[in-house]
Amino acid sequence: MRMVDLIEKKRDGHELSNDEIAYIIENYVNKSIPDYQMSSLLMAIYFQGMNHQESAALTNAMLNSGDVIDLSVVKGIKVDKHSTGGVGDKTTLVLGPLVASCGAKVAKLSGRGLGHTGGTLDKLESIEGLSINLSIEDFINQVNDIGIAVAGQTANLTPADKLLYALRDVTATVPSIPLIASSIMSKKLASGSDVIVLDVKIGDGAFMKTIEDARELSKIMVQIGSSFDKKVVAFITDMSSPLGFAVGNKLEVLEAINTLQGKGPADLTELCVEIGSYMVYSGGIATTLEKAKELVLEKLHSGEALAKLYDFIKHQGGILGDLSQFIDVKEIIEVKAESSGYVEHINALAIGVAAMKLGAGRETKEDVIDPNVGIVLEKKIGDQVKSGEVLAVVYNNKQNIKEILSEVQEAFTISKEHVAKQSIIFEIITE
Amino acid sequence: MRMVDLIEKKRDGHELSNDEIAYIIENYVNKSIPDYQMSSLLMAIYFQGMNHQESAALTNAMLNSGDVIDLSVVKGIKVDKHSTGGVGDKTTLVLGPLVASCGAKVAKLSGRGLGHTGGTLDKLESIEGLSINLSIEDFINQVNDIGIAVAGQTANLTPADKLLYALRDVTATVPSIPLIASSIMSKKLASGSDVIVLDVKIGDGAFMKTIEDARELSKIMVQIGSSFDKKVVAFITDMSSPLGFAVGNKLEVLEAINTLQGKGPADLTELCVEIGSYMVYSGGIATTLEKAKELVLEKLHSGEALAKLYDFIKHQGGILGDLSQFIDVKEIIEVKAESSGYVEHINALAIGVAAMKLGAGRETKEDVIDPNVGIVLEKKIGDQVKSGEVLAVVYNNKQNIKEILSEVQEAFTISKEHVAKQSIIFEIITE
Repeated sequence: MRMVDLIEKKRDGHELSNDEIAYIIENYVNKSIPDYQMSSLLMAIYFQGMNHQESAALTNAMLNSGDVIDLSVVKGIKVDKHSTGGVGDKTTLVLGPLVASCGAKVAKLSGRGLGHTGGTLDKLESIEGLSINLSIEDFINQVNDIGIAVAGQTANLTPADKLLYALRDVTATVPSIPLIASSIMSKKLASGSDVIVLDVKIGDGAFMKTIEDARELSKIMVQIGSSFDKKVVAFITDMSSPLGFAVGNKLEVLEAINTLQGKGPADLTELCVEIGSYMVYSGGIATTLEKAKELVLEKLHSGEALAKLYDFIKHQGGILGDLSQFIDVKEIIEVKAESSGYVEHINALAIGVAAMKLGAGRETKEDVIDPNVGIVLEKKIGDQVKSGEVLAVVYNNKQNIKEILSEVQEAFTISKEHVAKQSIIFEIITE
Repeated sequence: MRMVDLIEKKRDGHELSNDEIAYIIENYVNKSIPDYQMSSLLMAIYFQGMNHQESAALTNAMLNSGDVIDLSVVKGIKVDKHSTGGVGDKTTLVLGPLVASCGAKVAKLSGRGLGHTGGTLDKLESIEGLSINLSIEDFINQVNDIGIAVAGQTANLTPADKLLYALRDVTATVPSIPLIASSIMSKKLASGSDVIVLDVKIGDGAFMKTIEDARELSKIMVQIGSSFDKKVVAFITDMSSPLGFAVGNKLEVLEAINTLQGKGPADLTELCVEIGSYMVYSGGIATTLEKAKELVLEKLHSGEALAKLYDFIKHQGGILGDLSQFIDVKEIIEVKAESSGYVEHINALAIGVAAMKLGAGRETKEDVIDPNVGIVLEKKIGDQVKSGEVLAVVYNNKQNIKEILSEVQEAFTISKEHVAKQSIIFEIITE
């Protein structure tokens, strides 16, 4: 087999066999195939695509390029969730404790944020003392003990995916649906859970811009899961506006706590309850989706889910302390409306970028995050607003942020017409 | 400017500006842009193409990446010819002396063969003592003295093209028409001639397989030439069958001599006379194409063109000696027809590959050529053939070539129906 022939085959629109895909990944990881051939193949895949068979073969090859976590020693059905990333997405902080309190086992490996999107690890690490560096043994023990653990990747999971992703990032080959699908699914499958719920976000603040792309990505991922005998469900959800009110690490931790106290934003609560119900139902804890939802709501309202969050934070060494002292910033600035009407749109990308500029996110991988800063929306889509009313509050530690404040204000579109609120969930893709 | 943004721009079908293309080539040559980004861009160009403006900008950037030969000290109009390569293509050996004998100045830099196609330098070097390593000074002096010199590239011409071609070769991005056009034109323009005649071959044995592709390539090259104020003409010619009878280095030198003696194959003679007439006319030596053709035929039949070939060989140190002893092989094997009829097709690729396997060509750049071996066709398309008659003669120095002999035989398609001979020239593309 010669790589140049395989590039040509894909370039000309032919299907690569399982063996050919395995050969490519194996030899790319062992450096027999150079980056320049791989990037040429990736661009050919960008244009010619890959069918479900090829996507599953690529997922399998990447999965087998490194360690696979064996969760068989964890009793019960292991459930996992993956979000394609967005602005203000603190879902894991709410959903993890919520479904764990229902009896599902959550053994979750998370990532860090880059650019305008946040990462669960950064949010967790904003809590004093909390460590996400668990050994595999401690990780599994904690899941067995309290039903939930969230950690960074210490094991050598899917090294092929890491190499490929780094190459795609600098060769304009990131936005290829089969490549995205294989990347996500190889990581999720390597993490060892039985049930995987995918939160595929669309809109300004997401990687997928259209419902068609999100649907295609979802279908491929569900099919890949099925070829590995895993139960995979994909939610296509709205990321045209930020999720919830808070954007910024500690601010989002507080919002997660509020949500588990039943006082959270409607969109975040809806998303967590709906996805949580699917996880609980797919995890075999409830016999119907309706019963699963009843259980989820019960745990949310009884405070058991909140207790699970506190338990989880404590187990990983975190100390929340006095929550009124949790956020430590130099100044809190109000951004006010300049006209009256209804909030028609809040540009998630603009809010995400503004929060990043405040220091809540990373422009490059080397940047250090300020956990205290961020933006809290006071108005959401459909809300009525009067000129001079507060649209958002900015938590700041930097000098001269006039430009950032303008960007936050300009992220809001105010309409004279009444704007209807809509559900955050567009579609649910199952097998 | 960031390379990843330029890759994305081309990937999405947008036009790259002159400055962007100059930036890419400059930074690729100085190694600021890595191979893996360039190969990804090349694949994007394969799919999205480049318009005439972009092709001219790429040609210009590659041209300026190295030395440009200044032929201004050569008196008269300098004419050059480039063939896209084929099997049995000894045109330069005939055409160079032919047009030089008419008074045109031929300062030609040639290449070596690879795969099933031969190279002029290999053919010349099959002549004892002949050197193609001329200094620029000797090269120019020889053109001034006798009107013709053929050399390998000693100057650092178009280093960007060399780097790019090597990368394209291993990343399945060779067959992109704008990339081929820019590669050819940058080399031709760097060689400094005023008039460039392109022989764009189509068919089994050529890189271009269809008349449409050849036409597109020709048009781009003629337009690039025009944007550099050069007179460029493209001939689209047949390479479905080998050109002439002989395939193999010394065998082709002999055929060139025969052709300049007026005893050459009809197709090769036609091609050289027609292209030669355009070169003589475009070079301003004759006022009309008809008068140019009269002059070319006169020089061919008077023996002056042959004398020019001998003079040229002598000037570059070559000694032909007794031509009856020129070919030195262990055995000469006849390949015979197994049925009667008319020759419908002679697969140029198959003949080229068979000759390469005999040692007349290189499978890899490191292979050493045997100048004596090769194949001489005894029958051409349209010829009547009887079962048992000789189709081709194989000049061999190897052991056990049974398989090669079969390949030569199978390259011939014999039809029961009468097959018409056709002109070797399909189209002529001018400005």
